[in-house]
Amino acid sequence: MKPDNFADRLCTAVQEKDSRVCVGLDSNVERLPKHLLAGSTPGRAVERFCCEIIDAVAEHCAAVKPQSAYFEVLREEASPVLWSVMRYAKQAGLVVILDGKRNDIGSTAEAYAQAYLRGDSPVDAITVNPYLGGDGVMPFIQAAAAEGRGLFVLVKTSNPSSGELQDLPLAETGALVYQHIGDLVAGWGRELVGEQGYSSVGAVVGATYPEQLAELRERMPQAPFLVPGYGAQGATAPDVAAAFDDQGLGAVVNSSRGIIFAYKNIDMPPDQFATAARAATVQMKDALNKAITEKKS
Amino acid sequence: MKPDNFADRLCTAVQEKDSRVCVGLDSNVERLPKHLLAGSTPGRAVERFCCEIIDAVAEHCAAVKPQSAYFEVLREEASPVLWSVMRYAKQAGLVVILDGKRNDIGSTAEAYAQAYLRGDSPVDAITVNPYLGGDGVMPFIQAAAAEGRGLFVLVKTSNPSSGELQDLPLAETGALVYQHIGDLVAGWGRELVGEQGYSSVGAVVGATYPEQLAELRERMPQAPFLVPGYGAQGATAPDVAAAFDDQGLGAVVNSSRGIIFAYKNIDMPPDQFATAARAATVQMKDALNKAITEKKS
Repeated sequence: MKPDNFADRLCTAVQEKDSRVCVGLDSNVERLPKHLLAGSTPGRAVERFCCEIIDAVAEHCAAVKPQSAYFEVLREEASPVLWSVMRYAKQAGLVVILDGKRNDIGSTAEAYAQAYLRGDSPVDAITVNPYLGGDGVMPFIQAAAAEGRGLFVLVKTSNPSSGELQDLPLAETGALVYQHIGDLVAGWGRELVGEQGYSSVGAVVGATYPEQLAELRERMPQAPFLVPGYGAQGATAPDVAAAFDDQGLGAVVNSSRGIIFAYKNIDMPPDQFATAARAATVQMKDALNKAITEKKS
Repeated sequence: MKPDNFADRLCTAVQEKDSRVCVGLDSNVERLPKHLLAGSTPGRAVERFCCEIIDAVAEHCAAVKPQSAYFEVLREEASPVLWSVMRYAKQAGLVVILDGKRNDIGSTAEAYAQAYLRGDSPVDAITVNPYLGGDGVMPFIQAAAAEGRGLFVLVKTSNPSSGELQDLPLAETGALVYQHIGDLVAGWGRELVGEQGYSSVGAVVGATYPEQLAELRERMPQAPFLVPGYGAQGATAPDVAAAFDDQGLGAVVNSSRGIIFAYKNIDMPPDQFATAARAATVQMKDALNKAITEKKS
């Protein structure tokens, strides 16, 4: 990958597509249309499903986010299928964000960074868990800097129990844990700010917590946000409007099940899953753009 | 896997081998003996290296801990090699602890649990990161309960910057973050205590922080500890003695580079790597047993 700035590449993708949608490839094999599984291995069925989804949505989304868990559950087949899908998405011109929430001590984090962020890997950015502190994150930042890649560090996650640790107030500063992590992420990203004003060190901030999303947008103005929790997890376009700046930049919003399994929600036949996914992507794109316009006016 | 209790199985392995050693399979392809790489793919070289290590050390260690990152760096080859090595270790009678530090929201954590802790998976236990709170951990606990598996939740990690989050005091209770997580882990494990008094919900506590190790042993008496940081990271047998109870149970201590690449340290020829690893395992086993005996007297 050419060593330009990941954040600039993400901004450009958003502008060119006029879309802030990230399609989450949570390709749960148990929920795939049955016709894909007939006469196929589970892995090949997942691969075909993801590639057909990519073909259908590429015009209307800025990024795709393969969820590593739904590939790992394929066991021996996991990595051939994951890499095939990621390469396919890259060739389709999409920003590829691998959702692995990886984390380890420095020497091992270096191996993860080598795996996904260096050389001819099709991965533009990876999600990273901050529980181990800076030396577990630095190898990802170094790879991002050297190879024009990015990372999104978990700050405030979208799940119901995220507050069990993330919302606790700290004694020394009164800041909450997620605010403290947000400040660390802002500091880690300071050297990697691109021409559009955003850093290649981004943050995961859940759409299901709109107040914290707005507050973190103020607190870390240079971090691009990866915002999960839209759709199936309950968040709506007005919930996430605060993630964006006046130019409509600064975030991509992820929906997984709400797009890739849209055919189940709108009662379309399973073999129309790609058409349904495309329609759901356009609908989400338009809803986000409308919410951003309404926020400005 | 038969639905007996993981913690009991770990205790039995320690007793039968009279060894508290866990051999970490951090099989960094760049550090492999060159003769293994000749005429082989990187993945096949890693597979052969790990299997020869397993043959050499199985008699003298209780567990092996494949480090997922050093397999993932093999990209397309990653999962076939990882699963082959894990199945080989299981057939050698070893407890298999997959070090993946996985974490995600509940529905996705369920996919990780399905991948590694259910059905005919050779994985006995997996490491889990607690940043997302209880609903990201519960799917692992449910799988552990249903299938006689276990998990080790990161509490206090061995790396230099672990304190950036883990050592911060919390405002409401004055507890440090790692103590708070330790209390959560102890609570999560209460229903899964086996006949030997330990839970299948364990904790990762770094050998490089001996005081915190001793304190956490008191604080969470039913959690088996997975203790990384021995050897290459600097910790010694007396540093980890506090992890064990009077019967010498309650923990396994991991060494990775210090064992699998021991031939480099003692200047043996590369084709003797397995012999060197076996010698290093015996040495570590004896050092741990001596430190435990000395603590008692």
